[in-house]
Amino acid sequence: MEIITLITDFGNKDGYVGAMKGVMLDINPNLHIVDITHDISPQDIGEASFVLMTTFPFFPKGTIHLAVVDPGVGSLRRPLATKASDHIFVGPDNGIFGFLCHRGKKPEIYEITENRFFRHEISYTFHGRDLFAPVAAHLSLGLALNRVGKPISHIEEGTSFKPFVEEGFIQGEIIYVDRFGNLITNITKELVEKVAKGRDVEIRAGEKVILGISQFYSQEAPGEVLALFGSSSFMEISINMGNAAQKLKMGKGDKVIVEL
Amino acid sequence: MEIITLITDFGNKDGYVGAMKGVMLDINPNLHIVDITHDISPQDIGEASFVLMTTFPFFPKGTIHLAVVDPGVGSLRRPLATKASDHIFVGPDNGIFGFLCHRGKKPEIYEITENRFFRHEISYTFHGRDLFAPVAAHLSLGLALNRVGKPISHIEEGTSFKPFVEEGFIQGEIIYVDRFGNLITNITKELVEKVAKGRDVEIRAGEKVILGISQFYSQEAPGEVLALFGSSSFMEISINMGNAAQKLKMGKGDKVIVEL
Amino acid sequence: MEIITLITDFGNKDGYVGAMKGVMLDINPNLHIVDITHDISPQDIGEASFVLMTTFPFFPKGTIHLAVVDPGVGSLRRPLATKASDHIFVGPDNGIFGFLCHRGKKPEIYEITENRFFRHEISYTFHGRDLFAPVAAHLSLGLALNRVGKPISHIEEGTSFKPFVEEGFIQGEIIYVDRFGNLITNITKELVEKVAKGRDVEIRAGEKVILGISQFYSQEAPGEVLALFGSSSFMEISINMGNAAQKLKMGKGDKVIVEL
Repeated sequence: MEIITLITDFGNKDGYVGAMKGVMLDINPNLHIVDITHDISPQDIGEASFVLMTTFPFFPKGTIHLAVVDPGVGSLRRPLATKASDHIFVGPDNGIFGFLCHRGKKPEIYEITENRFFRHEISYTFHGRDLFAPVAAHLSLGLALNRVGKPISHIEEGTSFKPFVEEGFIQGEIIYVDRFGNLITNITKELVEKVAKGRDVEIRAGEKVILGISQFYSQEAPGEVLALFGSSSFMEISINMGNAAQKLKMGKGDKVIVEL
Repeated sequence: MEIITLITDFGNKDGYVGAMKGVMLDINPNLHIVDITHDISPQDIGEASFVLMTTFPFFPKGTIHLAVVDPGVGSLRRPLATKASDHIFVGPDNGIFGFLCHRGKKPEIYEITENRFFRHEISYTFHGRDLFAPVAAHLSLGLALNRVGKPISHIEEGTSFKPFVEEGFIQGEIIYVDRFGNLITNITKELVEKVAKGRDVEIRAGEKVILGISQFYSQEAPGEVLALFGSSSFMEISINMGNAAQKLKMGKGDKVIVEL
Repeated sequence: MEIITLITDFGNKDGYVGAMKGVMLDINPNLHIVDITHDISPQDIGEASFVLMTTFPFFPKGTIHLAVVDPGVGSLRRPLATKASDHIFVGPDNGIFGFLCHRGKKPEIYEITENRFFRHEISYTFHGRDLFAPVAAHLSLGLALNRVGKPISHIEEGTSFKPFVEEGFIQGEIIYVDRFGNLITNITKELVEKVAKGRDVEIRAGEKVILGISQFYSQEAPGEVLALFGSSSFMEISINMGNAAQKLKMGKGDKVIVEL
């Protein structure tokens, strides 16, 4: 059974996601649809990109990932189908898939142009339902990727997830805040290990100075601010049994500094 | 694999939806359950009806749609199983399915009375789990529709989605507000084309006057109020990259006028 | 097709649940994953326990229930796999599964220790993805329960769902508030019948005195406070067409008294 995962900003209340699922099941009734999330903040491409980047690798090879956060729908942004790391990605070329350029070998990229795979009548406002969903469903039936359109050479890069690095110093920023209020930065474990070379580090997040990196939340006293490498290997500023975003009044874009 | 879609106002937090899914899978373990939404505003039958009306046509023929927004549970409102447009609908007869009367040929309607298809013990407060879910699951196994109860001749109409029309003038209203704050009216593209006969129109939404109809959101400058025909062919009042409901302080029931 | 249900406090926005699903489908692509809820209040073990207790019995025997509300992740709390009432339960031993001790025959309990069933690299903060999800997926493939670790003799009890009872008097408390604002108590229908022996009862919830027990919401006038036995046989304080939690300003832990 082929798997299609879904990431959208359509929310769980309206019928938009339901319509997309209907369209896909009408084309491939044996499809296994997996909701990653539909609660991406409206039009927040960076957020969708982060969630996709940190979830897709856990799925079986060959999984099709449909990501539709599409503020430019109807305009000239290109519809895309891409193969990278043995996964397939379908959605608008607006930066959601930018991270694919920085991993492993070069992705195979196609602009979707073959309208015989689209719904008969295409709305101007809902390509998720009328273009991306049917193309993804046809791919799940075994359609070869190169039949959806023409090969192109690059993907829009979108949000960069790279921090600024100097000798013994990293300046990153918060790129995502999760439901627990954990402040997830763009500073990876790998980078800190490379810069610190086994030496102790100090983390500055706003006014707060944190000495050293914890391994898990409950290692510190309840209410204590801590830094740790989260489940995606990015450094997080967290509070054991608490909400760091609320308590520190910090959010996306705020700077986090790692020093020796 | 048979598909049952779900629309309820049970939310995604409590165990109500989970219990319904358990009951259905216990009867038909091969069922494909598709969540349309469980975030219908509590007891808002009109909202559920709108979401159902605008999503069911995208599903394969033969799909069973289970819609449970049921403030009258336990009272005399009738439980219903209906076939219309080659889809099957199961739920309370309180207006959710009213729109089926205005489409294509007359639906085949049954009051569900055969309690051998219900759960053994029926609560007074949760027919979604004890009556509608098991009946839908039995239908998914191939039970003929006419075996669930007795034929009846009409469905409760519920909310009317019809605007007031005069020569060169349409007065509609907002019938749904989506998560993006788009104000969806009951004015269809078909109706505007019939009334305008190719002439320019002007739209009045509260204090706001909008000249002409856009094709897609990003056609106008960010922050600009616009009118367009949304993905379900209803006229929407929207703001490119913004939230029209919040900015215009408008919502369900507010009037929208189209004039030449 | 094997069923795994999911209860977590990970929310529906972040990628945590998606990553868990990916891990499970990578091990068993034919798995049927059913979301019960991911909206348990962060770290609220009692809430998760209540939802699990009131939904699992509706699923087919043999269903695997994965419940991950895990504030102690990384610390010494034990990972658990348990068989009870012909269902299988996987998650942290922190009280979520405590109710299993009070039902039917003694559950078969194992501490999960066999790390060959875990993900290759285990994070300190996300055992849901790295330990519980893969173990549940292996169990769905037919792995015998006793192969996941070593038998242990008891489960953490967690929240007690038992009220205080005297002759003609029950003092219970609110253990769960649902999305409709229904105040669900730990007082069961069975207990009230045993204590009341057919006599009339009076219910006190805060300042409010309610005479007798209703059968369904719409039996009382809209806005009226009532007590009834909800769909899980627990007494609820509710308001027909209204929100009892908001109107009575009551919530979890507040006392409810039943007297003759």
